[in-house]
Amino acid sequence: MVGAEALVRSLIASGLDVCFTNPGTSEMHFVGALDRVREMRCVLALFEGVATGAADGYGRMTGRPASTLLHLGPGLANGIANLHNARRANTPIVNIVGEHATYHRRLDPPLHSDIAAVAGAHSRWVKVSESAAQAGPDAARAVAEALAGQGGISTLVLPADSAWNEGGEVAAPLRPAPRRKVDEQRIVRAAAMLKESGSALLLNGPMLAGEALELCGRLAAATGADLLAPTQIPRIERGAGRVNVDRIPYVIEPALKRLENVRRLVMVNAVAPMAFFAYPGKPGLLTREDCELFTLAAPEEDGADAVRRLLERLGARQAAPRREPLQRQAAPSGAFTLPGIAAVIAQRLPENCVVVDESVTSGRGLIGATRNAAPHDWITNTGGSIGFAMPVAIGAAVACPDRKLLCLEGDGSGMYTVQALWTMAREKLDVVTVIFANRTYEILKGEYQNVRAGELGPRALSMLEIGNPALDWVALARAQGVEAARVRNLDEFDAELGRSLGSPGPKLIEVALAG
Amino acid sequence: MVGAEALVRSLIASGLDVCFTNPGTSEMHFVGALDRVREMRCVLALFEGVATGAADGYGRMTGRPASTLLHLGPGLANGIANLHNARRANTPIVNIVGEHATYHRRLDPPLHSDIAAVAGAHSRWVKVSESAAQAGPDAARAVAEALAGQGGISTLVLPADSAWNEGGEVAAPLRPAPRRKVDEQRIVRAAAMLKESGSALLLNGPMLAGEALELCGRLAAATGADLLAPTQIPRIERGAGRVNVDRIPYVIEPALKRLENVRRLVMVNAVAPMAFFAYPGKPGLLTREDCELFTLAAPEEDGADAVRRLLERLGARQAAPRREPLQRQAAPSGAFTLPGIAAVIAQRLPENCVVVDESVTSGRGLIGATRNAAPHDWITNTGGSIGFAMPVAIGAAVACPDRKLLCLEGDGSGMYTVQALWTMAREKLDVVTVIFANRTYEILKGEYQNVRAGELGPRALSMLEIGNPALDWVALARAQGVEAARVRNLDEFDAELGRSLGSPGPKLIEVALAG
Repeated sequence: MVGAEALVRSLIASGLDVCFTNPGTSEMHFVGALDRVREMRCVLALFEGVATGAADGYGRMTGRPASTLLHLGPGLANGIANLHNARRANTPIVNIVGEHATYHRRLDPPLHSDIAAVAGAHSRWVKVSESAAQAGPDAARAVAEALAGQGGISTLVLPADSAWNEGGEVAAPLRPAPRRKVDEQRIVRAAAMLKESGSALLLNGPMLAGEALELCGRLAAATGADLLAPTQIPRIERGAGRVNVDRIPYVIEPALKRLENVRRLVMVNAVAPMAFFAYPGKPGLLTREDCELFTLAAPEEDGADAVRRLLERLGARQAAPRREPLQRQAAPSGAFTLPGIAAVIAQRLPENCVVVDESVTSGRGLIGATRNAAPHDWITNTGGSIGFAMPVAIGAAVACPDRKLLCLEGDGSGMYTVQALWTMAREKLDVVTVIFANRTYEILKGEYQNVRAGELGPRALSMLEIGNPALDWVALARAQGVEAARVRNLDEFDAELGRSLGSPGPKLIEVALAG
Repeated sequence: MVGAEALVRSLIASGLDVCFTNPGTSEMHFVGALDRVREMRCVLALFEGVATGAADGYGRMTGRPASTLLHLGPGLANGIANLHNARRANTPIVNIVGEHATYHRRLDPPLHSDIAAVAGAHSRWVKVSESAAQAGPDAARAVAEALAGQGGISTLVLPADSAWNEGGEVAAPLRPAPRRKVDEQRIVRAAAMLKESGSALLLNGPMLAGEALELCGRLAAATGADLLAPTQIPRIERGAGRVNVDRIPYVIEPALKRLENVRRLVMVNAVAPMAFFAYPGKPGLLTREDCELFTLAAPEEDGADAVRRLLERLGARQAAPRREPLQRQAAPSGAFTLPGIAAVIAQRLPENCVVVDESVTSGRGLIGATRNAAPHDWITNTGGSIGFAMPVAIGAAVACPDRKLLCLEGDGSGMYTVQALWTMAREKLDVVTVIFANRTYEILKGEYQNVRAGELGPRALSMLEIGNPALDWVALARAQGVEAARVRNLDEFDAELGRSLGSPGPKLIEVALAG
């Protein structure tokens, strides 16, 4: 068996059966193995950033890694932006990066570059499989490393001769290192803090879904502590019937205000909340200076276990969490407003849908408006590298074929990975993409003021405007095989969103906020 | 003066007056300086790979660096693929990468990553400007380093507080280190080699244009040596009235055949010719085993000076170079064939135009067909990182506003940086883009066989096909403000190419090779 086939079979044996790819010559033996190893689902992208973002979305929804298959250093490089977001989400991912044959590298051919050096910036584990015999065991190790602790990115570099040579062997799965349990002293200290007033829990990662979120709801009910989450979270379960967790706003003034009464912050799988950017004369840490910050469980530790033990210590195991009621709002009508857009989306959110949110400034009212909508998952951009939502929606849709995906995307951010629409069409994914077409990098106008860059003159302003020429998102979607419509007011938006969510396959709605 | 303004003014002082950008919050002070420093032309892109490719095209045409302005690590990462090609072309480029404020980095905010580590893979010079006072001098140094020797990429990381703090100072230009002259022994040895039969010169970089190319033509005329160039070359002047240089084919068998009679290869600003990929059972070096390889001038050395001295030693300063005659071909007609497409292009090539070639398999007949066309420049993908042509055409058009640009692009490769069309429209550039829409990664079908990946079964084949759904390139262009048309045979292509080249502004022609 050639090395590439041993690698694919070892991935399957380790439970990895989805690959998002944009392959080239050095990956042909992996591609060739797909006809013999039919358990591997391979999804083609026209650009590598789509493949890596899709792997991120898949991992966030399943907790299991998908693989990518990328073409040497430049192929990996095109995927880095979305791997950056995945790293911040602690998403398990296994990158397979094809490389020149081991004996060919020394000639320094045109496509050659230092793949491992670039991979090191976002991967926790990087290895070059220097022989066909290594490929299988390395694949098993890559999966185990991706799943170890809080999860992360493994990158396995596969030289062409390691792929095509005979001598490959299928490796058995390895057991990933589990999250560490925290010691009892931390439970004792957290319990003491939560008995005081002005306490809050800052949650992230696995604490924002499932049983872990329920446990935090009990803790809040028993102690009166606030439940908070950072602005950037990998995934949260929310809406009717769920325990509510307040996300800290992105904009620094409301963020500081939200935390001004928090005197004790117990962090569970979260780190101290910081401003997304530095702004002259404003603090970097968002908590008040006298706030006591305490890590109950670091991201790599077992937060759910810690909260469970904390509940026991407090005698609060049976405390009833407060659950959000379902509330229907009146259907808004007329010209676009941000609250109106948020209300339409809240009303139309299908039960159990997954929202991938990169709406940037256009979506600022959404979190509040959807708090009492039908239960749903919400995915955010954890690393701030834009062009995130459409690729992540692909992966989430592949992971959850029985759920609707709602992808909320700015027109500026959408253009970074506009090729994602083609993969949605090719795979017939149930993704409704809403493009907020305000024809500007609107957020930068605010940031320009926030960093005190002075008067916004015409030449500076022209670098923040993308309306000349105007992008036709309906045409961009149809050109790639996705049905699309443009809406010009709330009534049209409401009707089109209902129609799009009501039938299978990918759709795009351009919300024409300008012109 | 704030650091960002000092930086922009120092770039101007060093002769750098074009910036290709996709900025974010940390770059707002650079953007703000544009209204005060009007000498800097700033060109907006919707994706960073467009900006870096444009800087590559600009540098190849002018020999001077443009700058990019990129948003932290992910912004740089999106630009790496085209920086990889620029590195292989030795194009001078100055990347300015915004970074978090120096005091904010220690909080490890979401967008933070190790920018310098990633930049090191393609940049010859990397520095972080740790204060406003450093920004100006560092900018001058970045330009000088980009121009030193054979040229290359400088990356200057600019923390937000170094940009916004007062204390910036405009720096005077620095003198770049010149190319080294080769010693006389090499002239003597090369002269001896060229007197023998079976000799050839392998040229690259600056040897393929202007006076250097003329000198090589004299050398060939005087000695009978073949003039060769690698498949991947930054830029070559060719066509009627020019000295012809044969490019070594991409496909390995014809490449080996082209070199089978070369017994002595004198390399001038070139390296030993190697196969683009390794293939099982085939050699990596393209020259015959007994071929004598000799470096007259390495890429960082002064090849033109070496050839001039060689001519003197041989007493051949006045040898008359053989110049290509102008030959018009009969206008082809009927259904698409590759020779027919090549003939249409050769006929329609405007005098003094610049061709950026990423036509991949569809353009295999082009080099031969255009040998006797009107004089023109030809730019190729030096690094093999695809999505190269449209961005590079932008930069070449900005560099040469009085010349027509013809951008030859595959449909597969074009999708990597499809956002380039918007910048062409925004800047009203004279670029005619021809998309060869064969709806497949055609080259990979050949490569699949070449690397002996076995039978091409349906699941493997589906990873090489991009026709499901079919991409509508006319719609993709119009959606971004570029006039476009689809042609279905050679007659339509000829007419449309004539029409497109005959009027100003960007155009796109989809050559519908399939369906």
